[in-house]
Amino acid sequence: MTVAVLGAGMVGGAMAADLSKKFSVTSIDRSSIVLESLQKKHPQINTKQHDLNDAGSYRDLLKEFDMVITAVPGFMGYRTLEAVIGAGKNVVDISFSPEDTMQLDELAKSKNVTAVVDCGVAPGMSNFIIGYYNAFMQIERFECLVGGLPKLRLKPFEYKAPFSPIDVIEEYTRPARFVENSKIITREALSDIEAIDFEKAGTLESFNTDGLRSLIYTMKHIPNMKEKTLRYPGHVSLIQSLIKGGFFSTEKINYQGTDITPLQFSSAILIDQWKLGAGEPEFTIMRISLSGVLKDDTGVRKQFVYNLYDEYDPISKTSSMARTTGYTCNAAVELIANKLFEKKGVFPPELVGGDKACFDFVMKYLAERNVVYTLTES
Amino acid sequence: MTVAVLGAGMVGGAMAADLSKKFSVTSIDRSSIVLESLQKKHPQINTKQHDLNDAGSYRDLLKEFDMVITAVPGFMGYRTLEAVIGAGKNVVDISFSPEDTMQLDELAKSKNVTAVVDCGVAPGMSNFIIGYYNAFMQIERFECLVGGLPKLRLKPFEYKAPFSPIDVIEEYTRPARFVENSKIITREALSDIEAIDFEKAGTLESFNTDGLRSLIYTMKHIPNMKEKTLRYPGHVSLIQSLIKGGFFSTEKINYQGTDITPLQFSSAILIDQWKLGAGEPEFTIMRISLSGVLKDDTGVRKQFVYNLYDEYDPISKTSSMARTTGYTCNAAVELIANKLFEKKGVFPPELVGGDKACFDFVMKYLAERNVVYTLTES
Repeated sequence: MTVAVLGAGMVGGAMAADLSKKFSVTSIDRSSIVLESLQKKHPQINTKQHDLNDAGSYRDLLKEFDMVITAVPGFMGYRTLEAVIGAGKNVVDISFSPEDTMQLDELAKSKNVTAVVDCGVAPGMSNFIIGYYNAFMQIERFECLVGGLPKLRLKPFEYKAPFSPIDVIEEYTRPARFVENSKIITREALSDIEAIDFEKAGTLESFNTDGLRSLIYTMKHIPNMKEKTLRYPGHVSLIQSLIKGGFFSTEKINYQGTDITPLQFSSAILIDQWKLGAGEPEFTIMRISLSGVLKDDTGVRKQFVYNLYDEYDPISKTSSMARTTGYTCNAAVELIANKLFEKKGVFPPELVGGDKACFDFVMKYLAERNVVYTLTES
Repeated sequence: MTVAVLGAGMVGGAMAADLSKKFSVTSIDRSSIVLESLQKKHPQINTKQHDLNDAGSYRDLLKEFDMVITAVPGFMGYRTLEAVIGAGKNVVDISFSPEDTMQLDELAKSKNVTAVVDCGVAPGMSNFIIGYYNAFMQIERFECLVGGLPKLRLKPFEYKAPFSPIDVIEEYTRPARFVENSKIITREALSDIEAIDFEKAGTLESFNTDGLRSLIYTMKHIPNMKEKTLRYPGHVSLIQSLIKGGFFSTEKINYQGTDITPLQFSSAILIDQWKLGAGEPEFTIMRISLSGVLKDDTGVRKQFVYNLYDEYDPISKTSSMARTTGYTCNAAVELIANKLFEKKGVFPPELVGGDKACFDFVMKYLAERNVVYTLTES
């Protein structure tokens, strides 16, 4: 099988490296520097320099490939996905575009395309898991706590991001939606701060962010759902002070003839502070809790808790962020390649995980790559 | 007597208003708007629009006056004082320039001029007090805690400044000097945070700032001296995070063709946050502690503590900041006018307060204006 990976960033590169052990993989990016560096480390990966903004070029560009992965920056995610589906190629998407990709469902059906979207860790694995339990349980409560953090805690932020500060700040300022008693509740981002102890990460703080995405629509029958982000204690309080202090305002200030928003300039200040260095140890932590009543005759009340603690891999030099998100995406590529999932249309992972064979395959695929979800049942 | 007040800002205006009850006062400023507003409130004040940067003009400008007050922004304080002394006029200075004004001592002596400098609240009153006790006590320990704060505490800073944020941040980042066991110790500004309870202001935090100024040289024989600034709890911690987060860096960032330092842009963000509104209730709090041994035959060990808590005056609409600093300066004007202090040269107030008649006069002058220092002796 031939796979095109659109975007050769941190996650796109890790995915290509993993898939290239089994398939013929071509990484496509507009940066020849990024592509050269990737091929140097993984000579079996083919590379192609191309401007992925040129949607009209996709039909020719993708002709030779059996399957496509889109791993482009979020802001160009929707257009890229649309162009890939338009070119009639099965695709797994990890770009997390702000737009609702379900709007491409009709197009995908008409093109006879299977598109699995939002296929990282959260969204991604959290969706596979809820989808799996939804098939045999009346879920009453779903909670996902998730964060990616550096091991070295440096004040004042104790945080590093593998993407632009402006995207992180957007997540910190966009109102957060969650579901309570079957109603969609909208609250300020960063609200409901709770300190939670984790076995390996110690005490972290959870807070509301707008992370439920497709679940708000696909899992309408679940009365309580929330996703919260995890950071080291104090991080949120500092961010809240910066918000209230005007540092993330989007109202322009004219500084010596140049119009600049505090958000833009603060991002420029933070870009070095928050930069995840190459080889810098970091980890991904996630705790997914589901409770409800089994749909079988017993009607037993159950609680399932999945815990993930995954660290940077110093041997393959692959960040945990890339491993936990990218390998989930790769698992979905194989689901489609192996014809375990053959439906046509656009599917967030909760619509895939309901099939036990699919769910088991993804879990096994990740475990083989040492991304291990520990299940506790009660 | 005719008095020229150079600078008609918040403090300069309040001083002119106070002095104009007794003397013929002319306020001089480059802003006609500021001058018009001042004269509207106090028709007995004469005004003159003039660019005070033009040092060559001072001889003509000041010819008609018996005495001068300099209340210009700190950055132009030294040059202004030099020009006034050069014009041969007695002067009291409240501009707090970063330069060492003692360098003008020779010039003042040669011009037969009396110049009292740093004559506000701290520096100013703290210096008068140390000078007074120094005359009859072997002072072993001197501490001054001082702050100007808004009554309304608004997160995240709980702070308002009647001057530019950039000047406040300069105070927060300049290394702080204090004297311990007769050695000058230099520490980071904002270090040694201590929570201290005050009767009217509640719990505040004190921290090191570089506020001793002339005392480091004039009071070399005192083995322990420190000045600390007071703010509401949490303010310093947030400032420290901003410093460590790079928001007050002076290294230029190129943003779309414009070179800007984070310090400059952060100041532009903070200017509204920190603006003290007209008529906004604020207070000045100061605690001065001196301990040592009396120089008389008894050799008794004594501790003296002065407490000041002074609020905005809603009747005269005068800020506490202007009252506590400006009226101290005016007291010194009268000391010179009444020939209580006749020495020639440049004198910080600790070199004036050693004269009991001078010290008592200043204390009485302030008390008459309801700026009351409460003394506790033990």
